[in-house]
Amino acid sequence: MNKRKKATIHDIASKLGITASTVSRALNNHPRISDATKKLVNKTAKDINYQPNNIAAALRNGRSRLIGIIVPTANRNFFSSVVRGIEEIANQLNYKVIISQSYENFEQEVQIVDTLLSARVDGIIMSIGKNTEDFEHLERIVEKSIPLVLFDRITDDVEVNQVVIDDYMGAYKTVEHLIESGYKKIAHFTNPRKINIYSERLRGYTDALRDNGIPFDKNLVIESNMQLEDGQKSVLKMLDKHLDFDAIFSSSDYAAMGALQMLKEKNINVPEEVGLAGFGNEPFTSFTTPSLTTVDQVSIPMGNVAAELFFELLKADPKKYVPQKTVLKPELIIRESSMRKVNQPVDK
Amino acid sequence: MNKRKKATIHDIASKLGITASTVSRALNNHPRISDATKKLVNKTAKDINYQPNNIAAALRNGRSRLIGIIVPTANRNFFSSVVRGIEEIANQLNYKVIISQSYENFEQEVQIVDTLLSARVDGIIMSIGKNTEDFEHLERIVEKSIPLVLFDRITDDVEVNQVVIDDYMGAYKTVEHLIESGYKKIAHFTNPRKINIYSERLRGYTDALRDNGIPFDKNLVIESNMQLEDGQKSVLKMLDKHLDFDAIFSSSDYAAMGALQMLKEKNINVPEEVGLAGFGNEPFTSFTTPSLTTVDQVSIPMGNVAAELFFELLKADPKKYVPQKTVLKPELIIRESSMRKVNQPVDK
Repeated sequence: MNKRKKATIHDIASKLGITASTVSRALNNHPRISDATKKLVNKTAKDINYQPNNIAAALRNGRSRLIGIIVPTANRNFFSSVVRGIEEIANQLNYKVIISQSYENFEQEVQIVDTLLSARVDGIIMSIGKNTEDFEHLERIVEKSIPLVLFDRITDDVEVNQVVIDDYMGAYKTVEHLIESGYKKIAHFTNPRKINIYSERLRGYTDALRDNGIPFDKNLVIESNMQLEDGQKSVLKMLDKHLDFDAIFSSSDYAAMGALQMLKEKNINVPEEVGLAGFGNEPFTSFTTPSLTTVDQVSIPMGNVAAELFFELLKADPKKYVPQKTVLKPELIIRESSMRKVNQPVDK
Repeated sequence: MNKRKKATIHDIASKLGITASTVSRALNNHPRISDATKKLVNKTAKDINYQPNNIAAALRNGRSRLIGIIVPTANRNFFSSVVRGIEEIANQLNYKVIISQSYENFEQEVQIVDTLLSARVDGIIMSIGKNTEDFEHLERIVEKSIPLVLFDRITDDVEVNQVVIDDYMGAYKTVEHLIESGYKKIAHFTNPRKINIYSERLRGYTDALRDNGIPFDKNLVIESNMQLEDGQKSVLKMLDKHLDFDAIFSSSDYAAMGALQMLKEKNINVPEEVGLAGFGNEPFTSFTTPSLTTVDQVSIPMGNVAAELFFELLKADPKKYVPQKTVLKPELIIRESSMRKVNQPVDK
């Protein structure tokens, strides 16, 4: 299967009776080579199924025109939109992207860094897995002077370009909106792993409560992995414990969705009895009944910025380059699930 | 940025005062090399940040242990689950996958084939874009004896391993279920591009009608790109034309979702007045009110089979290998949106 008899530029050269160097220059559109020769060379290359050895070219000029992207999972609207934002910029510069998924698994994350490097990417743009606490695999990339940009889930332990949204502000605004809608006992769903996004959202939640004179109750902070089922279970837990709550601000749309399902099952009316807000603006949040209030993470612009920082880094002298952190403003999307008071604008 | 001073096996060799060939054999776990030496070599390799040149190794033994996957978009539960199914098998064999997205764009699809080949994947597993009608880029892969497996969206124009579900049967069973639930005027949402999946589902729809003595009405076959908005527009179109329908079988969950939204907006009750069924079992179909009847495409097993066929092909002699087509059975998931008759089992 793997005995690939590859056509080479020498095959083209001997077929046309010209030198390999002429073939090479013709393929690379060298100004000294006539258009007629270029045409002939390109036609012959196609005829004999010649595939330019991009690897060799990459090793020669140091560029493969390939960006490796690592995401926990590509099947989240947020991550796939960031990828799209990266591709928008990359395609303009004739770069392609390849994606690998870490599935929040540390070992897998370390391995796919090597996978992408061995695929000769020019650099990596990534979001860190929830369980990653050791960053040696990132340091290895930086030590090799290979461009690395982190987005959304970042670490301050490695000095690299970073793009995040202001998670603190997104959470603060959401909780403030719930308070303005008349909710007073607001629970918060968060992840026990306090990576930047969750710790910042928790901080926004507590500060918004404090600034509005609402006492913080640690019993109302519910930790879980925040998948759909976790949202269901968290509501059950709060009901079983007879906790007094009239709203939930979930750090994840999935857990908010699960909460909605369980509240409905228990005949608790949303938004009249319990208000609900998620985080992420996953498409399904506009499909539910009631539709879910959530925070949009400006994912396409985040991808654009990540790509721009990547190319800036690619051009820069690594010794002089000072890594940057870009913070984008998230957008609160108010929908039915938090509209206890009437006369509020609805964005479906 | 790209002046990477890479550590080589020669650096390890000179550091330990042994030959490069011993280092190489130690790194490759050769039986002739003592465990003590292997340990020492591996430690030194780590210390000096040596990264094995997988490319060189790949070119030498013809394997990069990397599978390239091309999907229209990774942000569909179906495609991401197939990828996961592929990874389940690949990881067992110490293979990694990299993903590229075609976005249903033919030019992009052709380019990323080259991208993946230049990243030295051992082969490609892919699902074809809706707009792909020329398959030269696939033929090029086959001609090079590089393993290629197609799944879901396939073509019979290229002789390669294929995995599909029985789309005909999935559609037939769904329409039969709608008829059994008392619906008689069943519309069908389909795509004008008659790639295999859509033509097979249309055939299942028409045959199920015929076999149940219901006349086929071509006005009830509505063509669109079948995104969410298309589903909304298709319902509007049917209402504007005063078409007489009491159910919709949509070839896409997204268009079914859009149809549900528009029917609700027009105060048409689902399932009492209009029954609704989608195709794909996207997660949101269980979140809606009412929940959506749909067809599960057994995506994880499809990925498993695609990977198994890939590895079979990788081991085989390409000259003797006869490509196979595997057809998996889809599963009808009956939910609230098609339950006009009571006493039917509900699977939420």
